[in-house]
Amino acid sequence: MVANPTELITSDKNTTVKLVKGLLTQARQRKKQGQTVIEGVHLIDAALRSDYPFVQILVSEAAQHHPEVQQILTRLPTYTPILTLSDALYESIRSLGTGIDIMALINIPAPRLAAISNDCLILNDVQDNGNVGTLLRTAAAVGIHNILCTSSTAQAWSPKTLRAGMGAQFALTIYEHLSVQDILDYVQTPLFATSSHTDTMIYQHDLKQPIAWIMGHEGQGVCDELMQCATPIALPQPNGQESLNVAIAGSLCLYETLRQREYT
Amino acid sequence: MVANPTELITSDKNTTVKLVKGLLTQARQRKKQGQTVIEGVHLIDAALRSDYPFVQILVSEAAQHHPEVQQILTRLPTYTPILTLSDALYESIRSLGTGIDIMALINIPAPRLAAISNDCLILNDVQDNGNVGTLLRTAAAVGIHNILCTSSTAQAWSPKTLRAGMGAQFALTIYEHLSVQDILDYVQTPLFATSSHTDTMIYQHDLKQPIAWIMGHEGQGVCDELMQCATPIALPQPNGQESLNVAIAGSLCLYETLRQREYT
Repeated sequence: MVANPTELITSDKNTTVKLVKGLLTQARQRKKQGQTVIEGVHLIDAALRSDYPFVQILVSEAAQHHPEVQQILTRLPTYTPILTLSDALYESIRSLGTGIDIMALINIPAPRLAAISNDCLILNDVQDNGNVGTLLRTAAAVGIHNILCTSSTAQAWSPKTLRAGMGAQFALTIYEHLSVQDILDYVQTPLFATSSHTDTMIYQHDLKQPIAWIMGHEGQGVCDELMQCATPIALPQPNGQESLNVAIAGSLCLYETLRQREYT
Repeated sequence: MVANPTELITSDKNTTVKLVKGLLTQARQRKKQGQTVIEGVHLIDAALRSDYPFVQILVSEAAQHHPEVQQILTRLPTYTPILTLSDALYESIRSLGTGIDIMALINIPAPRLAAISNDCLILNDVQDNGNVGTLLRTAAAVGIHNILCTSSTAQAWSPKTLRAGMGAQFALTIYEHLSVQDILDYVQTPLFATSSHTDTMIYQHDLKQPIAWIMGHEGQGVCDELMQCATPIALPQPNGQESLNVAIAGSLCLYETLRQREYT
């Protein structure tokens, strides 16, 4: 049974509309409310495939009869509230460009950190939403589930990070707002980090044991406290260019780990 | 000798200011003029290290005495024209956020395509400027010089691509606006492309001979005409997620090529 959109909202004074607009535009609001908004058919489909619950669905009047929206509405639990917004109002709040106008308000998961003794990826103040999202996407592809983010890392559940992650967030357990001390206290797996201060190439390391890969800030790299506890590894750059983009470096590390385990 | 900034420009009617503003904001203008603008100390430094000539330097009044700007002005050929813009005017045209306000107008190189018989990277309608820039950055890091872009690929010399490339453009020979037929006519190196229609993993291929790696459109992948002439390879995704970001996939291919040649 398709849940039935009930009322048509036209006013930007509507409480849910105001909330959603704030969550789409302000990191502070997302952190304060513990909620975010996922936009577009693709992300909503990824959430549905992971049985992730929605607080609220919002569709534009024009989109509500679109076959892909109808297909999504059919798959929703029947108790999911659906708001229909006038096209002009929807357009005034969406952060995506043109597409199929559907979005969902969701609660951001807040898993409680416990001891980690298997593979994980630590994002140590990675600043750029695109880099965080791309790293999450690669982690999900290679099957790493635990992601630990220190407090200055870009939000894993911001609209931009969700877009770059293509829904990988729903396949992962993401711990956010951690201190460096949290990492040191809870991660029992050996730490590895890329460094320009070593000549030992990644290919010369045995990566078959569980590993906690640390990726750092785009400008400053991994912080000293974590670097001191980590095995430094180098990625070759025969042409002597500057360091690689952090999402590239991280993905190379995760894939070299996979290669050594599965393809040697 | 430090070249001397001569006049202070305050009007947005100034011909150079109008040209620069157009080049920073309009892909069409860049293509029509064959020129672009590089912003910030970092990119200008990368251009200087490659002895790349500037048509014109623009600085803001506040930035002209900044030590890093002074250091750049010292390194310029003395015939390089320098315009000083009022701070308000500079701010009204720059596409970067706050930083050290210096930019340079340059001609976009237009190398003539000839037969390619060594390693190269083919960008077959890659849409996103960030992906193109990141791929250029990785290509420069591993020492691949020749980049071939088909006509719908994002501009390699746009402000966004330059930023993502971190100046890698100046270390590469980039052929743009090519047809698929140009690629087939001039590339004499075996073509390789990632594909979801093969089970043969990249690690099972011998990548020691010269290779032309093709990276395709973010949504549609490599076009049929090129795919038909290419060896398809798979990147493992044990967790069965969707395909990787194209800049990640491309970088994994370039680094696996490097690994097989230098670290086995």
